[in-house]
Amino acid sequence: MTNEFQTLKPMPVFTAGSAVRMEHDLLGDREVPADAYFGIQTLRALENFQITGITLNHFPNLVKALAMVKKAAARTNSELGYLQTELAEAIGRACDEIIAGELHDHFLVDMIQGGAGTSTNMNANEVIANRALELLGHSKGEYKNVHPNNHVNLSQSTNDVYPTSINLAILLSYSDLVHSMEQLCLEFDKKAEEFASVIKMGRTQLQDAVPMTLGQEFAAFAATVREDVARVKELVVLFKEINMGGTAIGTGINTDPAYRQLVVDALSEISGIEFICAENLVEATSDMGAFVMFSGVMKRIAVKISKICSDLRLLSSGPRAGFNEINLPPMQPGSSIMPGKVNPVIPEVVNQVAYQVIGNDLTITLAAESGQLQLNVMEPVIAFNLLQSMRLMTQAMHTLANRCVNGITANVEHCRQMVENSIGVITAVSPFIGYENATRIAKLALHSGRSVKELVLEEELLSEAELNDILRPENMTQPRKVDIKIRV
Amino acid sequence: MTNEFQTLKPMPVFTAGSAVRMEHDLLGDREVPADAYFGIQTLRALENFQITGITLNHFPNLVKALAMVKKAAARTNSELGYLQTELAEAIGRACDEIIAGELHDHFLVDMIQGGAGTSTNMNANEVIANRALELLGHSKGEYKNVHPNNHVNLSQSTNDVYPTSINLAILLSYSDLVHSMEQLCLEFDKKAEEFASVIKMGRTQLQDAVPMTLGQEFAAFAATVREDVARVKELVVLFKEINMGGTAIGTGINTDPAYRQLVVDALSEISGIEFICAENLVEATSDMGAFVMFSGVMKRIAVKISKICSDLRLLSSGPRAGFNEINLPPMQPGSSIMPGKVNPVIPEVVNQVAYQVIGNDLTITLAAESGQLQLNVMEPVIAFNLLQSMRLMTQAMHTLANRCVNGITANVEHCRQMVENSIGVITAVSPFIGYENATRIAKLALHSGRSVKELVLEEELLSEAELNDILRPENMTQPRKVDIKIRV
Amino acid sequence: MTNEFQTLKPMPVFTAGSAVRMEHDLLGDREVPADAYFGIQTLRALENFQITGITLNHFPNLVKALAMVKKAAARTNSELGYLQTELAEAIGRACDEIIAGELHDHFLVDMIQGGAGTSTNMNANEVIANRALELLGHSKGEYKNVHPNNHVNLSQSTNDVYPTSINLAILLSYSDLVHSMEQLCLEFDKKAEEFASVIKMGRTQLQDAVPMTLGQEFAAFAATVREDVARVKELVVLFKEINMGGTAIGTGINTDPAYRQLVVDALSEISGIEFICAENLVEATSDMGAFVMFSGVMKRIAVKISKICSDLRLLSSGPRAGFNEINLPPMQPGSSIMPGKVNPVIPEVVNQVAYQVIGNDLTITLAAESGQLQLNVMEPVIAFNLLQSMRLMTQAMHTLANRCVNGITANVEHCRQMVENSIGVITAVSPFIGYENATRIAKLALHSGRSVKELVLEEELLSEAELNDILRPENMTQPRKVDIKIRV
Amino acid sequence: MTNEFQTLKPMPVFTAGSAVRMEHDLLGDREVPADAYFGIQTLRALENFQITGITLNHFPNLVKALAMVKKAAARTNSELGYLQTELAEAIGRACDEIIAGELHDHFLVDMIQGGAGTSTNMNANEVIANRALELLGHSKGEYKNVHPNNHVNLSQSTNDVYPTSINLAILLSYSDLVHSMEQLCLEFDKKAEEFASVIKMGRTQLQDAVPMTLGQEFAAFAATVREDVARVKELVVLFKEINMGGTAIGTGINTDPAYRQLVVDALSEISGIEFICAENLVEATSDMGAFVMFSGVMKRIAVKISKICSDLRLLSSGPRAGFNEINLPPMQPGSSIMPGKVNPVIPEVVNQVAYQVIGNDLTITLAAESGQLQLNVMEPVIAFNLLQSMRLMTQAMHTLANRCVNGITANVEHCRQMVENSIGVITAVSPFIGYENATRIAKLALHSGRSVKELVLEEELLSEAELNDILRPENMTQPRKVDIKIRV
Repeated sequence: MTNEFQTLKPMPVFTAGSAVRMEHDLLGDREVPADAYFGIQTLRALENFQITGITLNHFPNLVKALAMVKKAAARTNSELGYLQTELAEAIGRACDEIIAGELHDHFLVDMIQGGAGTSTNMNANEVIANRALELLGHSKGEYKNVHPNNHVNLSQSTNDVYPTSINLAILLSYSDLVHSMEQLCLEFDKKAEEFASVIKMGRTQLQDAVPMTLGQEFAAFAATVREDVARVKELVVLFKEINMGGTAIGTGINTDPAYRQLVVDALSEISGIEFICAENLVEATSDMGAFVMFSGVMKRIAVKISKICSDLRLLSSGPRAGFNEINLPPMQPGSSIMPGKVNPVIPEVVNQVAYQVIGNDLTITLAAESGQLQLNVMEPVIAFNLLQSMRLMTQAMHTLANRCVNGITANVEHCRQMVENSIGVITAVSPFIGYENATRIAKLALHSGRSVKELVLEEELLSEAELNDILRPENMTQPRKVDIKIRV
Repeated sequence: MTNEFQTLKPMPVFTAGSAVRMEHDLLGDREVPADAYFGIQTLRALENFQITGITLNHFPNLVKALAMVKKAAARTNSELGYLQTELAEAIGRACDEIIAGELHDHFLVDMIQGGAGTSTNMNANEVIANRALELLGHSKGEYKNVHPNNHVNLSQSTNDVYPTSINLAILLSYSDLVHSMEQLCLEFDKKAEEFASVIKMGRTQLQDAVPMTLGQEFAAFAATVREDVARVKELVVLFKEINMGGTAIGTGINTDPAYRQLVVDALSEISGIEFICAENLVEATSDMGAFVMFSGVMKRIAVKISKICSDLRLLSSGPRAGFNEINLPPMQPGSSIMPGKVNPVIPEVVNQVAYQVIGNDLTITLAAESGQLQLNVMEPVIAFNLLQSMRLMTQAMHTLANRCVNGITANVEHCRQMVENSIGVITAVSPFIGYENATRIAKLALHSGRSVKELVLEEELLSEAELNDILRPENMTQPRKVDIKIRV
Repeated sequence: MTNEFQTLKPMPVFTAGSAVRMEHDLLGDREVPADAYFGIQTLRALENFQITGITLNHFPNLVKALAMVKKAAARTNSELGYLQTELAEAIGRACDEIIAGELHDHFLVDMIQGGAGTSTNMNANEVIANRALELLGHSKGEYKNVHPNNHVNLSQSTNDVYPTSINLAILLSYSDLVHSMEQLCLEFDKKAEEFASVIKMGRTQLQDAVPMTLGQEFAAFAATVREDVARVKELVVLFKEINMGGTAIGTGINTDPAYRQLVVDALSEISGIEFICAENLVEATSDMGAFVMFSGVMKRIAVKISKICSDLRLLSSGPRAGFNEINLPPMQPGSSIMPGKVNPVIPEVVNQVAYQVIGNDLTITLAAESGQLQLNVMEPVIAFNLLQSMRLMTQAMHTLANRCVNGITANVEHCRQMVENSIGVITAVSPFIGYENATRIAKLALHSGRSVKELVLEEELLSEAELNDILRPENMTQPRKVDIKIRV
Repeated sequence: MTNEFQTLKPMPVFTAGSAVRMEHDLLGDREVPADAYFGIQTLRALENFQITGITLNHFPNLVKALAMVKKAAARTNSELGYLQTELAEAIGRACDEIIAGELHDHFLVDMIQGGAGTSTNMNANEVIANRALELLGHSKGEYKNVHPNNHVNLSQSTNDVYPTSINLAILLSYSDLVHSMEQLCLEFDKKAEEFASVIKMGRTQLQDAVPMTLGQEFAAFAATVREDVARVKELVVLFKEINMGGTAIGTGINTDPAYRQLVVDALSEISGIEFICAENLVEATSDMGAFVMFSGVMKRIAVKISKICSDLRLLSSGPRAGFNEINLPPMQPGSSIMPGKVNPVIPEVVNQVAYQVIGNDLTITLAAESGQLQLNVMEPVIAFNLLQSMRLMTQAMHTLANRCVNGITANVEHCRQMVENSIGVITAVSPFIGYENATRIAKLALHSGRSVKELVLEEELLSEAELNDILRPENMTQPRKVDIKIRV
């Protein structure tokens, strides 16, 4: 076990011989670094959970969300008379600093942790209590004045604070995600317009099918991503239902009857997001449905984006022994041994992100399924994977839009030749000569190497004028009214 | 390879020496059993795809959906003048028979098949053509009169017919699913009411937490399933958008401009379901998004139902060395060796169904992700898994409601004793004596085996009257206003 | 719920008014059809588990395995003096009939069932007891003479019989699987030889890379499948370790100390497979490790076969606007609308089977992970999925070998032209002119459309003789010694 | 897109106005920070792949592995006369520094990257070239003296270097993994011995079954993990087969015939691991089988460890309303609201790690399945997930052993009472009074609350002496010979 922790972040601030303060909890006394804003419970969590090396502050939106929730609770407790105004204000100011991006260095618990988020909640409670103590002129650790549990956590439990904070963190991350998606749609739109008259062979089952325009292909990319923007917008709403006020198991033990609605209102005001109170707080406390659902949408986006990237790689295969219909912008030399090779590196990285997101969805599913009774203790791994999936997809789509799609060019002439040379155009002729005649001609064309047009004319199945009309690109790439008389 | 096919259904009607008719296709001539309604292309598919042994008619709603789609196309082709009225009517009557449940024995292609559903579509085209031939007084196989491709498949491609039929099959199966879900909710509701005053310990992280009622627990089960009814209703709508008229690749080649809307209207009327035309047919033809999304919801239901069943098994663990809070109705002797043992067999089978549905969701995801260019050729395995998941969940929830939940009884006295005996009630006392005092008392109770009440009184932290009030069950299972003066 | 059961097999033999016999169990009395070999416990299971409609006898190897295990136990019990010889012989003869394929119609419990396999075990116990009764001249149901539990199940528990039977069923199915794999390897070998001198472009990242032979490509397919034959052979051994004698929880309660080894020996002799006794029966009773491991290998095979099938589809893409290097044998007309289209239907169905197997692996993983304490109650869904995966892969590889690979042909001339026309050959030149010169030439070739050879000669970087030597196919498709003097 | 990159590591060394050098590649000229050891190709990769923020040096074993491979190639090239001794030595010394842990700060490409690892390989080539230049007295960037491609990458391609380095990185990480597993086994062994005489109820399906010892339960935990040690040792061998010498697509283009074996030998010597040359280098270059297989084993371990942790949480449930058989050592206060609550935080974090590893396995599966033709371009996401899974499992098992299992204590008296009070002991009596009598007694005991012993005596089914003998703990927890005369 020599090098196991070598890449994990070292335990902070523990310089040998540096000043410490003494703290106490259920398990006894411990020294805490004097300048640490976190306290004894965070310290124990740092020791207990040396797992991923990825700490809470890797997701700033989560840290901010915790502070917003704590501020909302303090304000509500004060309004209801359970917390002195002076204390509530100090707590609020400490939270404001965190919301502004300060003190994040002290949110150090590993994202994957036992205890259902208690360590995350206590990390927040301790940092806020110690900062509030300072703001009130006390020293860190003088908890009789501002106590992490009695005051900062008043009327709360990890079991309502933690899921609410995750919901809020997701909502805070959501706009970046949607922005990336919309940006990608716009780049596809531009290409759809640019390539509107580039005629090419459509393919089904990787076999030449019937003609289409390259613009139609890119418009379909835009449409499919745009549909997901709609889905994301619909489903993110699930996170606006929160379980604040449920405390330990959703029954609301140790809260005032008025607290539940007031704290939701306070959080709405502080965050600018319109939250509502879950109808059944017992259900809401253990339920992971919203995470499963939203991860399902992330998976759906991943599936679609992966399919698009695979298509881009297929269409740009070549340059000479492939489809060679489009060119992706070269982003870096492609090979350490093959000079001049340029590879589709951006779609490739996006495909991989998609696989990661799909894997993350499974982790979320497993964790959600293993909830027991009044709580799902696996929430930390859910939060970690969902926040990571959102970030990865945001980055990946941003990269795809700006480092690939925006620079795609078409090999117009090659695309057109493939159509003219194709057997697939027999489909357009089929309604006029019948499926069986058409089958015979197609087979003949394949084996002789001759063109469909030539063979149809030779057999005098249609006149040249009729055939020219049928095979005109614009007639083959959309529905059209035909003279029924000449059809079978 | 001696016994590989032994359990697969034998190839039908192929009695040695029985009468045959000759048919022809792209690959040549083949004998088809004279009394088979299917033709040469179905025959080849039967030979090519000996995979699961589970055939199209295992899902009657899929067979019916195919017939409805074919009927809608025939009617539209007739209206637009592309198909003679007499033929359209004969095709329509053949379809009506299938919709009524007849001729399903001739839909025999394996559910998992290559060709992106072409064999399914051709199975339908051939059966309908042959039945229409009979209705018109011809013999089976006289395709010059009614042709599977030229007439039954007119203005269509597998690539619009097949996905549309799957959508319709899902919509036809959907009401059974919702009915099962609602039935389950109702049974949970009844138990929630029945157990409204049964006080018990709530648990978080499998550790005794704070009191709640058993009614609250069952009400949460009802609520969580009911939320999924809402999700299913929202998302099933995605299947009402269909790509009829897109034909081969969504460009609508070989259709009349008016066809697209008319065929959607016809299908709406025939099926009684309000379909709409997909906005972008090129996108709609290759997109599997709706399947991924709906399978995601099935997975979410599975996750929730699995959690509920695991809870029911935990709560009924015992009878003497477990939680023993509830009794599930005995459904069968539990053991071949342990006499008198009764096991939670119904929740156990439902858990397993949930795992199957989650596995199926992965298969669907993989298949959806591997679409290429203008088509997703993996659609058959998607249809198979999604239809199976819907059926499994329908059956499982129906079974759970009627063979388990409806017969659950509570061990009221045992539940109450666990509360009175618990250390967890210290939580209710904590706001009045402070988190640190409470921690100390809890620790003392644990190690001494004495009760929280006794210890608090001994230390004179609260009066007996105050304590009785705090520990009253109805005060611990909901929020309440307290006299702030006595709080910390 | 009108049509939920319509496709599930109807409950057998229950013709209204037909004769019945009365049976009794823990839950009370029930009528059983007089001619049914199964009894009251199977009857309850049929009612309780209406889930998939796929019954035990869908997997004949599982039914046979159960009979072999029962026969081994009866023989051992008789040897140890716990069972009268006459009874043991009658039980043995009943088992022999089942092993010979008879009475399978009476193994009707749904593959997905609660109760950890108890219903499967009791289905076997009851059928065997009733058949033994008949063989001894009694009537069905006269269990005082031969009792399903006291005699047929003597010294056994579901918890050792059921996993042992699954292990045996897998081992019985294993040879078909390996046979299919080896058959596929042989077909790839043949093609590797046939195509040994077909020069073509190798591709990395879908971009033209450097030349190889088509034979090398097919030899790699053979090699990769052959490696999996080795893995399967290694890992199937895990199933030879069984937990017979562990009874209820692995402690061996109600068995004679000598029983454990004797029953394993008896089963080895009866089945012809060399079983060994698990070292720790408590561990072996709840452990699902072997299933997870073997399903992992099935997944690995699926991944590889899927990659191969995707390659076959890519290489045969076209016929004119694709790679067009090979031709798959046409198996059926490819399209209902596009005449003459031939699709890669066999690789497509194999890809789908791979996705199913990967999904099944997840179901198995989930079920394995949810074991609790002394048993994994989710074993039935594990058995169902693993046996199905084995069958699907067996069928799929058999189909791939015989309906696709064996008929593949090469487009030799086209392959060669792609090499001659390629820029990728610059890689072979690079060691002689340096990476940066080579990069420049490649770029020039791409933009000018001129050949690498032409440009290198024009710049007099190498002599024509040197270049001809470097670019000879056999020099580019394997390592070779070069004159270091002319290298950079 | 305001805060998308806020937590990703900033691009290094790019202080505005700091010194730069100019470099050139296929795409043109770029400024590189003067003090960077990496060059232009790494720079482009840093810009292209801003995905996870987790860089190559997060896995030091991977960076070291790259250096070992480069050193082996340089030595071999020198031996064969393709590389000047002086250059080979300088390259070797640069590699040695990296192997010793230096220069890792310059390995900065994101773990998830496009280009199939080319950027990783070029990052290594550039750092090594620049360091070698310095060692030879040149300045960074003077590549005419030591060139990243012509010299450092000589006889290599990313397509052999990258997979070989991943294999090596896994082998370097493997010993930590095994060490953690063995440590965990030892802790379970200790507890098995400590609890050897603690009698308790075994449970199947969460229902009371038959007695066992707590020692047997812990011995089973040890046995099941120990089996996985054997599996890991067997399967890690797959990584010793490497494809060095295959270069671009496995054909060995641009290598000397002797190179392949020599470079494998050199790497074996440098790393101390006995590598062998893959038999078929074309197959080995695109095959991901070893990764899939090993990830499958990681998944199997995860499944087992997760089951064990769930068991530990069940067995320690309570303290008063649960099973309460064992106590886990308290690691931190359990709740922010419930004073005195202690939670099983260590098993909980390990369960979550298991879910992460299972999700990672899916990502690896997806990536492996999507390989195409001569390469699997998704290898970076495979490497990332597999190395992460190994690290997570290593940490999790280490934590479980040292922060949980080693401190477990048993509630001996409670365990014993549960046995004495149980109905499950009827199983031991059943062989003597028959399954049906036993069933009746069990039912009576359940409903009357009386003990099995009392009821059996009352009915005079057995004598007290017989019963005492049957119910002795050591007789119920292992097989035993009984007097057949008194059996049914």
